[in-house]
Amino acid sequence: MSEQLPSPALLPSGFVDRLPLDAQAEASGTETLLSVFASHGYERVAPPLLEFEDTLLGGAGAVLADQTFRLMDPDTRRMMALRPDITPQIARIAATRLHAAPRPLRLSYAGQSVIAGNGSAGQNERQIGQAGIELIGPDSVEADAEVVGIAAEALACLGVTAVSFDVTMPPLAPSLIEQAGLSGAAKTALMHALDRKDATAVAAYGGPIADTLIALLSAAGPADQALEALNAADLPSVTRPFSNRLKASVDAIRARLPGLQLTVDPVEFRGWKYHTGVCVTVYALESGEELGRGGRYLCNDNEPACGLTFRPDAVFRAAPRGKLPERVYIPFGTDFHVAKALREAGYVTVAALEPHRHPEEEARRLTCSSIASADRLISLG
Amino acid sequence: MSEQLPSPALLPSGFVDRLPLDAQAEASGTETLLSVFASHGYERVAPPLLEFEDTLLGGAGAVLADQTFRLMDPDTRRMMALRPDITPQIARIAATRLHAAPRPLRLSYAGQSVIAGNGSAGQNERQIGQAGIELIGPDSVEADAEVVGIAAEALACLGVTAVSFDVTMPPLAPSLIEQAGLSGAAKTALMHALDRKDATAVAAYGGPIADTLIALLSAAGPADQALEALNAADLPSVTRPFSNRLKASVDAIRARLPGLQLTVDPVEFRGWKYHTGVCVTVYALESGEELGRGGRYLCNDNEPACGLTFRPDAVFRAAPRGKLPERVYIPFGTDFHVAKALREAGYVTVAALEPHRHPEEEARRLTCSSIASADRLISLG
Repeated sequence: MSEQLPSPALLPSGFVDRLPLDAQAEASGTETLLSVFASHGYERVAPPLLEFEDTLLGGAGAVLADQTFRLMDPDTRRMMALRPDITPQIARIAATRLHAAPRPLRLSYAGQSVIAGNGSAGQNERQIGQAGIELIGPDSVEADAEVVGIAAEALACLGVTAVSFDVTMPPLAPSLIEQAGLSGAAKTALMHALDRKDATAVAAYGGPIADTLIALLSAAGPADQALEALNAADLPSVTRPFSNRLKASVDAIRARLPGLQLTVDPVEFRGWKYHTGVCVTVYALESGEELGRGGRYLCNDNEPACGLTFRPDAVFRAAPRGKLPERVYIPFGTDFHVAKALREAGYVTVAALEPHRHPEEEARRLTCSSIASADRLISLG
Repeated sequence: MSEQLPSPALLPSGFVDRLPLDAQAEASGTETLLSVFASHGYERVAPPLLEFEDTLLGGAGAVLADQTFRLMDPDTRRMMALRPDITPQIARIAATRLHAAPRPLRLSYAGQSVIAGNGSAGQNERQIGQAGIELIGPDSVEADAEVVGIAAEALACLGVTAVSFDVTMPPLAPSLIEQAGLSGAAKTALMHALDRKDATAVAAYGGPIADTLIALLSAAGPADQALEALNAADLPSVTRPFSNRLKASVDAIRARLPGLQLTVDPVEFRGWKYHTGVCVTVYALESGEELGRGGRYLCNDNEPACGLTFRPDAVFRAAPRGKLPERVYIPFGTDFHVAKALREAGYVTVAALEPHRHPEEEARRLTCSSIASADRLISLG
């Protein structure tokens, strides 16, 4: 019962029924993440599934417009949108209802989002579980490092320690390209080449910055090596602050988490939409699956913020499964207190709703491993 | 920050942002409910927010059609519907993916639903949190009693004990009316009169069953009195099984929960849509707010089932608030292990992200009640 086979005849593509075990693991995993967030002072908020289109897709959410389902509010005849992402809603709350709350404002959330089409490559789900934190107010490397540190701690709390944090600075490459005077078709061709990490095409389209871009492209990898290449690179003065900040954030993260596996890809920008500074993607080392991502952006009032959002379904796939509690069959007519005491001791009780001639058989049929009698458990071996 | 003022300028009517404390209380309360359900062998499933209209509104969901938002799947051009209720989805899962799972099939769920318009009177929310159980397979009073018993236990686990369970049998009055040969406008007028509990109108439109209906209407109240009136009533033989089952279910519930406040309204049917047998509504005694409801229905394959769904937001309003963990301010530069030890001891740590000249002032501004030093907590009094 733990598989999630798609049922194309029954459910639209990208939507699944989560069955027992999976649904339970995801729910428990989400609450564990949120409890770690809460222990660091991140207070939970819960924005709605639907908003008016113009508030949901204003501010940080504007770039999500083409990913968003819309429907009409029959009351006001205004268009509403089903949220494709929760982070822009948190940014809205920070700028409105919690405008006067003290900064740094630390908020957490968990919920479901829906995207209209296939988003990034290889991502077929259209209903996306999200659980994350947003740190609103400060624009500092300490804030960047706190978010990464809490993310790593939350994963460790679920037993997910074989992870890599891949740090990027999405505005760096565009800034370099713009300073080189590239625009229009030339810029587009170069961006695509970078996006595909195609060094030959970067050489062909890179003009005056081809060598710099190829050096940075090939420097992607362990943080030290990438930062060294970035330091050695010939960057214009408007691009240099991005590289300085990237290095400073990585240093702050390493000071906090010396053992963390950290890679840096200085010219990566694909998949980052509303982000304006250091970004990070978390991968499970074994499967290579993306567990979460986040970074620095601006809230509706241009207030600095950074955050990180986990995909709880991916996180629970990477987490070791906890031991399931033992199921105990409670024969019909057993005193209610017997089952109650068992539940309080951590057992799951499965009550017979009618008498059975062969309780052992019935217990096995219901996947119980033992039967309760008045004073003991009879194991079914 | 704990109020939920509607923001009409920002959010569509019926949708709210839940702010800290409220959002946390609702999430914790939901997980507590689900953990009680799990301890009785109810396994968690998680159906999606959207389905194809014809699967979501087929079977038990058909009567929800006028409450449902629809949108088009851009891939298949088929209409999808945003779920207005989770129970019909559980019924679908029981009839499809879990068709071969052993019965009784015990399932639990928690999630959000969306209704298009204002549903029952006084209910303005359009996004509805739900957390419930479904017991699929048996059609017995023991099954009815198990569901009520677990619901009462789950509420008690949250400290919500001042509750009333109001039991009804929605098909009883329609059966009586049909047997009396009333149909068309006469039937509609009588149903409306019953719905409004208007004895004068019932007398006017009730024809041959006016006296019976008035007797049953006025018998609503404590279970004993209502069941006695029902027993004394002159019911046709096709209606009598409904009254017998109502009495038997109430007896089974009372055997299991002798102290439960139980009322019976034998001719109530309003708000019950796809239900075919005994139904129950749970109210908070103090506020009168509805905390949950459920009852007996048929799954897609006409398989018997009963369940109960809580509204976690209402449940948490009725629950005593737990003590909030103490927030401790961690001055900039404090060894990470100090904060870690505090979190492990149950404190919330709020880290300074830069040095502050007046840490006490800063700690108070961030609503912390103490400051960590290397070896102790300094209380801010």
